Amino acid sequence: MALPPPTVYSADHEAFRDSVRQFVERSVRPHLDEHLEQKALPRQFWLDAGSQGLLGLEVPEEYGGGAAGDYRFNAILLEEFAKVNAALASCMGIHADIVPPYLTTLATEEQRKRWLPGMVSGELLTAIAMTEPSGGSDLAALKTTAVRDGADWVLDGSKTFITNGYSADLIIVAARTSPEKKARGITLFAVEADRPGFSRGRKLDKVGQPESDTAELFFDGVRVSDAEVVGEVDGGFIHMMKNLPQERLGCSVSNLAHAEQILAETLEYVQERKAFGQQIGSFQHNKFLLAELATKIDVTRAFVERYVAAHAEGALSATDAAKAKWWTSEIQNEVLDHCVQLYGGYGYMNEYRVARAWRDARVTKIWAGTNEIMKELIGRELGL
Amino acid sequence: MALPPPTVYSADHEAFRDSVRQFVERSVRPHLDEHLEQKALPRQFWLDAGSQGLLGLEVPEEYGGGAAGDYRFNAILLEEFAKVNAALASCMGIHADIVPPYLTTLATEEQRKRWLPGMVSGELLTAIAMTEPSGGSDLAALKTTAVRDGADWVLDGSKTFITNGYSADLIIVAARTSPEKKARGITLFAVEADRPGFSRGRKLDKVGQPESDTAELFFDGVRVSDAEVVGEVDGGFIHMMKNLPQERLGCSVSNLAHAEQILAETLEYVQERKAFGQQIGSFQHNKFLLAELATKIDVTRAFVERYVAAHAEGALSATDAAKAKWWTSEIQNEVLDHCVQLYGGYGYMNEYRVARAWRDARVTKIWAGTNEIMKELIGRELGL
Amino acid sequence: MALPPPTVYSADHEAFRDSVRQFVERSVRPHLDEHLEQKALPRQFWLDAGSQGLLGLEVPEEYGGGAAGDYRFNAILLEEFAKVNAALASCMGIHADIVPPYLTTLATEEQRKRWLPGMVSGELLTAIAMTEPSGGSDLAALKTTAVRDGADWVLDGSKTFITNGYSADLIIVAARTSPEKKARGITLFAVEADRPGFSRGRKLDKVGQPESDTAELFFDGVRVSDAEVVGEVDGGFIHMMKNLPQERLGCSVSNLAHAEQILAETLEYVQERKAFGQQIGSFQHNKFLLAELATKIDVTRAFVERYVAAHAEGALSATDAAKAKWWTSEIQNEVLDHCVQLYGGYGYMNEYRVARAWRDARVTKIWAGTNEIMKELIGRELGL
Amino acid sequence: MALPPPTVYSADHEAFRDSVRQFVERSVRPHLDEHLEQKALPRQFWLDAGSQGLLGLEVPEEYGGGAAGDYRFNAILLEEFAKVNAALASCMGIHADIVPPYLTTLATEEQRKRWLPGMVSGELLTAIAMTEPSGGSDLAALKTTAVRDGADWVLDGSKTFITNGYSADLIIVAARTSPEKKARGITLFAVEADRPGFSRGRKLDKVGQPESDTAELFFDGVRVSDAEVVGEVDGGFIHMMKNLPQERLGCSVSNLAHAEQILAETLEYVQERKAFGQQIGSFQHNKFLLAELATKIDVTRAFVERYVAAHAEGALSATDAAKAKWWTSEIQNEVLDHCVQLYGGYGYMNEYRVARAWRDARVTKIWAGTNEIMKELIGRELGL
Repeated sequence: MALPPPTVYSADHEAFRDSVRQFVERSVRPHLDEHLEQKALPRQFWLDAGSQGLLGLEVPEEYGGGAAGDYRFNAILLEEFAKVNAALASCMGIHADIVPPYLTTLATEEQRKRWLPGMVSGELLTAIAMTEPSGGSDLAALKTTAVRDGADWVLDGSKTFITNGYSADLIIVAARTSPEKKARGITLFAVEADRPGFSRGRKLDKVGQPESDTAELFFDGVRVSDAEVVGEVDGGFIHMMKNLPQERLGCSVSNLAHAEQILAETLEYVQERKAFGQQIGSFQHNKFLLAELATKIDVTRAFVERYVAAHAEGALSATDAAKAKWWTSEIQNEVLDHCVQLYGGYGYMNEYRVARAWRDARVTKIWAGTNEIMKELIGRELGL
Repeated sequence: MALPPPTVYSADHEAFRDSVRQFVERSVRPHLDEHLEQKALPRQFWLDAGSQGLLGLEVPEEYGGGAAGDYRFNAILLEEFAKVNAALASCMGIHADIVPPYLTTLATEEQRKRWLPGMVSGELLTAIAMTEPSGGSDLAALKTTAVRDGADWVLDGSKTFITNGYSADLIIVAARTSPEKKARGITLFAVEADRPGFSRGRKLDKVGQPESDTAELFFDGVRVSDAEVVGEVDGGFIHMMKNLPQERLGCSVSNLAHAEQILAETLEYVQERKAFGQQIGSFQHNKFLLAELATKIDVTRAFVERYVAAHAEGALSATDAAKAKWWTSEIQNEVLDHCVQLYGGYGYMNEYRVARAWRDARVTKIWAGTNEIMKELIGRELGL
Repeated sequence: MALPPPTVYSADHEAFRDSVRQFVERSVRPHLDEHLEQKALPRQFWLDAGSQGLLGLEVPEEYGGGAAGDYRFNAILLEEFAKVNAALASCMGIHADIVPPYLTTLATEEQRKRWLPGMVSGELLTAIAMTEPSGGSDLAALKTTAVRDGADWVLDGSKTFITNGYSADLIIVAARTSPEKKARGITLFAVEADRPGFSRGRKLDKVGQPESDTAELFFDGVRVSDAEVVGEVDGGFIHMMKNLPQERLGCSVSNLAHAEQILAETLEYVQERKAFGQQIGSFQHNKFLLAELATKIDVTRAFVERYVAAHAEGALSATDAAKAKWWTSEIQNEVLDHCVQLYGGYGYMNEYRVARAWRDARVTKIWAGTNEIMKELIGRELGL
Repeated sequence: MALPPPTVYSADHEAFRDSVRQFVERSVRPHLDEHLEQKALPRQFWLDAGSQGLLGLEVPEEYGGGAAGDYRFNAILLEEFAKVNAALASCMGIHADIVPPYLTTLATEEQRKRWLPGMVSGELLTAIAMTEPSGGSDLAALKTTAVRDGADWVLDGSKTFITNGYSADLIIVAARTSPEKKARGITLFAVEADRPGFSRGRKLDKVGQPESDTAELFFDGVRVSDAEVVGEVDGGFIHMMKNLPQERLGCSVSNLAHAEQILAETLEYVQERKAFGQQIGSFQHNKFLLAELATKIDVTRAFVERYVAAHAEGALSATDAAKAKWWTSEIQNEVLDHCVQLYGGYGYMNEYRVARAWRDARVTKIWAGTNEIMKELIGRELGL
């Protein structure tokens, strides 16, 4: 598994990759068991990542950010975390890849000064809350409301499946402000977690990615002011649509890197493990299977790198991102399922990384818009 | 999902099914949360099942058994437990379907008197230990040894992935007695769990089926006598080969019933749950998908029922059973993966049964001989 | 590939199978090249089959039929012809399996006397014409009309993809008699081919099954009387719905037998053909593949035999038949595609039977209601 | 279906594409029916392509070639012909993409002068003959021999499945010169078709690509001299290995363009064709399917373009090409099979291009080394 040149990454990108790897080895890998036990990433993780300069690659320098101006750096960050485990990439993706555009391109200068420095340092952990218990991927059916009361807005409703939800300090919340306007009546609010009326449910007990804290969030008469409106009133749907391609591309990058890493480890395993007097990887069935999986990874890498490069140039459409999201999640799950099988009984033991990776991966076909929603979007673009 | 007649089950079989269902509702379902918490089935479960007469369907009446003489009853037992959860069917399958033939058809009269009554009452929980850490599905590579020492045999070695292993009172152990004779140098021993030198590792932390206690077993100079030899010395491989078809058919019955039940529940869910203003099951993509899954279940049921009927007549070959085992486990996993997707984010939450069922099912492609081993066996029968 | 007992076929059925096989070897196989060259089955084929008593198994004795009263005989007939080639089974299926119920159960006594003896002897070749150029599987959109003119009906319109269409003497035609009543305004007419205004287009040049003559049919003011109405006026849709299950089950039987036969031949080929110094079937990849295909055939056989037995008892629903139709056509095409691959370059040469079989099979996913229509029907039955 | 930038093609490449397209529209498309009827490309086709400068893109200018020095031009040539039909791309691929490297990089100056001008003008049609009736993809088992007889070599043996074989004027033939040296005992000879002892079998009757003349070739004591040895004596295997990546990449380019074109046409069809009162493409099942196919085409295009760019830089390994070959042929066949289904009954009619395209495509999984051979090669590279 290695693509022929020309690559989309330059020496600068690779130098950054090295620095992320070193950070991972030094500051993250020694704590993986703690993450598993605590079913969360501790604040120290975020502070360390902030110190290393990983949390604000796209944030302007004046707020402490890296001002990289090149999505390839984000992609490398996600890849290197995804190689360690999928939950790290998910949490990092939310805080350092998905939320930042809302607070840099949509926020007012005042808001930027208020939140970006903390986001960059890791002191202000962020999340984004769109999905609701009853609504799934249907943003037009949003039930959380924000009602004007004097100069304030009063939020009522609930959100679920919110990554970083249990520990986030600041949450971008999509709420309905104009009930009659469907998708065009949604506004984004930045809600600080210490606001009265805000509460969190327990950490959700998920099939995989136990290291990420996922939670239900409740808004019971939470008061915010215009200073917490992010972007335009009633413009939330458009804001989200504009940022979804990056979210879905980020998922794609993580999906691929995760599968690629586990496949590489499995290749080593099948060369060492023997059965019936032979390396199990050299049985022709396994050999052909691994040839297929390696090809699929390479095919997908060529595709994802092309799209990363396109996004770095601002040329990635929402449909492109939808294609990348569903395809990479399918390939990831397919690869991992075969890897489990190649480990035999050990593939079913949680102490084996391949087993956890398999469980971790299943959600990628569901979240960030189910793969079915992705196909709906692509189909529309095809004129169907 | 319902096959047209003629069915292979008579009114007697269906009456038995009703009684199992009543037992399940009365004595099992109220305790499912305890099983999950304890990561094991408590002894009371076995005693209750024994009282109900479920543990010795094939055991002669003189030892307290049901003397059913018809494999269809076993199949019904497995089906009804698999519908509740896969782990129940697995544990029940080992104790009440897989081990009994060893202790009825191979055991001496003395052995039968010694063990069968306890097996039937649930006081003597059983397991069977073939797989070893280094060997996987390769019985010819067995490393556990039993060496003659005077009138005794001394067992040394270890076994892994043993269902019921943590709580079993009696374990059928395959050990090498003639090192030079490969597969033809293996003997079966019935090892009581209180023998000195026998110990168990911790309960294994599995991807799914937490309710079944699976353990590693250690034999460190465990002494047994000829009275604990089951069947012929050096005849273990043949004994196991003879009994593997029933084991694999039993797995097949459970695999199918498990998938069929979850699909039925999913069908209800997709008729209730709405998105974009519509029952999610009525979106054409989902509708066609569910039509496919329902067909696959029906196809597989016609197949499995035919094979159950064949086995009841003693007409099922090892190759037939291999076909049933790999096919049903593929269908089961395919069906469950789609069911998870139909639940959206909830399908990834452990509190949803579909999520646990998906994790529970993954092992069926691996155990009882991996699906790859099954295909090897079938290929040989085809003359390849 | 051989199912364990209990089979659904008795000794009587197998005796009939033997007689069909003898007929095939004696009277059909020597002429296969002629069929290919002429792109049609000659009338002598039908006369021979009639003499052998194969054309009216379900027809009462008083009209010369076999009065078998057991669908298993039809199934055997289709199987044995499908093993020779798919086109034979298709043409035979239309004339001897699909059309007969219309002329036995729906026809008047006068009609029976008029047409059944010729149908049974092979002197009156039949076809059934539902599909229209613009409509595909949508019977409710039927455009061919039959308009009252005095005591007559005048038919106008066209039909396409009509098997036996080029040589049929009598064609059951579905025409709209009540334009405003959609599906409930269709009537069936038995149109003799010598009626003025009836004409045929050229034989259609199909991807496969060249031996079957498939044609477009044109009705330009064709006059028929009430004596040619089959069943109830405006009852055609219900009549067709009632008979579609048998049509689809018949297709299923043929699909399976065709695939099973070619797989058996391929198994012989891969045991003889060598590459890299080895039987190509013994390469593990091929061995596992063939094990999978053999399993799928067995699974499907258990399913189809169950449904044949059910239909023989009158217990097969339209949904059951829809399941059988789509499933068998998928399996057939999957099996044949792999068989082609196993023949390597020879699999792409028309002189090889496997190549022609592959082309022959493709239509089974399309005709008799596309597989998509089948899934729609099944989905509705599931309440979706 | 359209990738986001950055593309690997420059304005120069696109200008060349336009000129090829114009040539195709002007000189090729009007003659497609003749090609079909004659089951061959007439000599005028080659002369026209030669006049247009399409036949020697890589050939140095001194021999009349284009000296493009950039594989992207070859790729564009193959794409534009594959869009018209697969056979055109196959025949063009042999003559203008696969054979040229043998005659430019391996040939002596004398040989270049002798053959290249005719190759470039289209007066000397070329083919390459590796595959033998008994050997399939196993070059080491080659049976055609070339034995020294004085200063001559005498060739005996036969070759099969040779594209352009029926009309080629010059054929590169792989023959065994050192029987004991297996793969390392093969030499390439350029055999002119008028040599005594050379003959051709009939045009092979293939499942698809009727426009390409594929033939068996016989060598019965054909005398050639050292002047017809291409490259090193006994070096043929290495020469072929060196050139196979380009052959396989060329196949990949054609496979993709062919599928992409038919999918685009199918998309138009499903937007026009109606059933049940609706565009058939807008049924959700079809919509999602087309979204999947469009994604797979885009994924594969990103992959193939990356590999084309790599090969243009001399960076494509044999394993890379093997990956591209099997993957693109799978995708091509998968896409085309679905396209046939979307056309319903018309998809089974040879007069519809989609039907012919489906038949044309099947061979791509078999030729240029079967996909199984590709996986073997990739597996080895993985160390298995």
